Amino acid sequence: MTVKELYEKEKKIIGKKITLKGWIRNHRKQKEFGFIEFSDGTCFKHVQIVYENKLKDFEEIQKMHNGSSIEVVGKVVESSGKQSFEINASKILLLGDCPEDYPMQPKKHSREFLREKAYLRPRTNLFQAVFRIRSVAAFAIHEYFQKNGYIYVHTPLITTADCEGSDQMFKITTLDFDHLEKNEEGKVDLSKDLFGKKSYITGSGQLHGETFALAFNKIYTFGPTFRTENSNTKTHANEFWMIEPEIAFCDLEGVMDIEEDMIKYIVKYVLDHCKDEIDFCNQFVEEGLREKLEKLLSSHFTRITHKEAIDILKKAKVKWEFEPSYEEDIAKEHEKYITEYFNGPVFITNWPKDIKAWYMKLNDDNKTVAAVDLEVPGSGELIGGSQREDDYDVLLKRAKDLGVNTEEVDWYMNLRKFGGCYHSGFGMGFERLIMYLTGIDNIRDSIPYPRTPGNCDY
Amino acid sequence: MTVKELYEKEKKIIGKKITLKGWIRNHRKQKEFGFIEFSDGTCFKHVQIVYENKLKDFEEIQKMHNGSSIEVVGKVVESSGKQSFEINASKILLLGDCPEDYPMQPKKHSREFLREKAYLRPRTNLFQAVFRIRSVAAFAIHEYFQKNGYIYVHTPLITTADCEGSDQMFKITTLDFDHLEKNEEGKVDLSKDLFGKKSYITGSGQLHGETFALAFNKIYTFGPTFRTENSNTKTHANEFWMIEPEIAFCDLEGVMDIEEDMIKYIVKYVLDHCKDEIDFCNQFVEEGLREKLEKLLSSHFTRITHKEAIDILKKAKVKWEFEPSYEEDIAKEHEKYITEYFNGPVFITNWPKDIKAWYMKLNDDNKTVAAVDLEVPGSGELIGGSQREDDYDVLLKRAKDLGVNTEEVDWYMNLRKFGGCYHSGFGMGFERLIMYLTGIDNIRDSIPYPRTPGNCDY
Repeated sequence: MTVKELYEKEKKIIGKKITLKGWIRNHRKQKEFGFIEFSDGTCFKHVQIVYENKLKDFEEIQKMHNGSSIEVVGKVVESSGKQSFEINASKILLLGDCPEDYPMQPKKHSREFLREKAYLRPRTNLFQAVFRIRSVAAFAIHEYFQKNGYIYVHTPLITTADCEGSDQMFKITTLDFDHLEKNEEGKVDLSKDLFGKKSYITGSGQLHGETFALAFNKIYTFGPTFRTENSNTKTHANEFWMIEPEIAFCDLEGVMDIEEDMIKYIVKYVLDHCKDEIDFCNQFVEEGLREKLEKLLSSHFTRITHKEAIDILKKAKVKWEFEPSYEEDIAKEHEKYITEYFNGPVFITNWPKDIKAWYMKLNDDNKTVAAVDLEVPGSGELIGGSQREDDYDVLLKRAKDLGVNTEEVDWYMNLRKFGGCYHSGFGMGFERLIMYLTGIDNIRDSIPYPRTPGNCDY
Repeated sequence: MTVKELYEKEKKIIGKKITLKGWIRNHRKQKEFGFIEFSDGTCFKHVQIVYENKLKDFEEIQKMHNGSSIEVVGKVVESSGKQSFEINASKILLLGDCPEDYPMQPKKHSREFLREKAYLRPRTNLFQAVFRIRSVAAFAIHEYFQKNGYIYVHTPLITTADCEGSDQMFKITTLDFDHLEKNEEGKVDLSKDLFGKKSYITGSGQLHGETFALAFNKIYTFGPTFRTENSNTKTHANEFWMIEPEIAFCDLEGVMDIEEDMIKYIVKYVLDHCKDEIDFCNQFVEEGLREKLEKLLSSHFTRITHKEAIDILKKAKVKWEFEPSYEEDIAKEHEKYITEYFNGPVFITNWPKDIKAWYMKLNDDNKTVAAVDLEVPGSGELIGGSQREDDYDVLLKRAKDLGVNTEEVDWYMNLRKFGGCYHSGFGMGFERLIMYLTGIDNIRDSIPYPRTPGNCDY
């Protein structure tokens, strides 16, 4: 029997004898009784175990420490406490001991402390909530795309295509760092490396994703990506997971429809499947979280252009830290203003081409590209997408202007020659979504083992 | 309208006018008619488009090449051919041209040729089948574990824990290869690297997975893993995807129950959702594939020990290439014999400790470990698992004997101190599963962009 099953059956199981295996989260001892707050990890809720001094092992049981794993045999009885039932134990067996200096004592720990104990923090209420929501949200994403006929594609992690800029990518090697042989040009002899050339771990699966969209129509990726950015902020990590759908015969309007539909599906799925976890986050992480999420479900997602957004920002009676500009990206403060102005999520489209990627479709004005960012209340940018440039010559010119080595990605370029079509896609950072869903404000707390500059423990 | 929807509605849509967007797979031209074999990638089946010379663009249409993307407007009519319907086109619009020397002409291509054109091969029937099965199988795995209360954990890809043997792992760096600074000891100064120390991309998520199993009870991973093995065989790749479940309070018998249940779930799911694809593979890839898979569903999975397996092999009247031995691993030829002997899948348990990993539970005989390999007819080893050593001292001794640096994984060791419990897990190579499900005999054809020694194109 698991605690999850207990809560599913609840009243129906009163009076039954059951066996549970799990951990002591908190142990309160009295002379005649003991109370164990028990969790087996199968659901967010704990269950109270009561044992009496008539048990022959009473003294042994009282010595059991917080954190220990135990087997409990007992009867489900009605409770006068917060829960509708508790377990009256007839036997409590120690399976795995835990020392008294166990770091995860039942008290409030700082997030920083918990990060240092990353391998133990999943045992706390906060991370039981966050990481279960993470798992459920991941499944919601798979279910959404599979139900809608998308093919899940595992794009490669190791790549020699450095079109996102190799200075932002980790190099990989099988050579011995301390004894690198150089060739005649004084460069490292990569012919002896496993792949025989410079290789990296990827920063995006998009380019490879497009090759599959032009065969399967609708595809998505869901995998890890890597950036070498040396920045210590609350929203940057060097390893994170991305979802990158790509859809053939789909324009910018179409991709906005999909993004809105997908986000609502995920949020609804998490609200339906993680009631206790959302309640906890609502109470202890972000006040108003539940309301924010429920409101999103009924929201109309506004669609405005970058120009219209700048117009609104310029008219606003606000003293900006960064002056809004028609040529530039918008800042955090602008994102916040825009979502509050429209009181809901906002798609901002048609961005100045100079601040966007080379593969985005150039609009007829020759100044903007068919890109779209989704801004949501509370979190700002959640998704970035675009229609892709499908004109070979325009793409080639844009690539050259931006210094992209198109020879390395001739296969990507060729998609425009071999039955190309208009197509669009987007990328959603999974950790950013988890932060939005849980209210967690630091990316380090949204992923099991965060990697940031100088931090690669565990 | 998509081709998938067309086949779902079939007879009900006869007489209706529809619009399709997709690609010309084959174009046969006659004086008064043209026939286009059309695919939009939404399902395995193609649809036949017929156009007549009364169309005003008849001549233009006849010039359209294989591979081009087109928009078709037409009426669904009954067909006298193999399919129950075809499209009588009233308009065919060229969306994206394709040159006459397009490599993917409608003829038989060798697998080797298709590997060289990895970005185009998803457009062939074979890879439409293989990669759709891959996507569906991936979802089946997620659904199986989520339905059964497992938490999906994203274990880290970048790691400093090299317990699997760092010589088998790729090193990563942000330093400039050609200008590495050395420290006083003559070694590369890693303090300037992004993480400040030697870091790798992982070969397994198991150790991190265990930390979550001891908090959430049942977890699984599903992500990419990397090995630097310099071997060019049909079953080795340097990048592949793994599924690694880990279950608390679960012994070796329990983990076999789960493996059997999971495999049957996946096979049934794929048979139910990929009928056309399995039929195709059955006809063109592996004769008897469907029968093999259906037979598995009703199979009893035999459970024998390694010793019993060797007994059987020794008694067999077979001239072995490798002599069976109680102290050694079993060879491909042995796996084949054993699965044929039992006429179905076989779990082989309790392996000699010297040929298995350090974290596997030592049995009371002090000679074997509680490991289990699942052998399936036709493919040999599909899954490897074990009960994990949960005794701190025994684990420490095993680690030292095998030269594992336990200081680097003190957190993993500590799981045995902080409320440890008996637990088990297994690892399934996803590509191996795909090869089993499709009959594909080379791992390079089971993954979109294979990485093998000397091969890292795209």
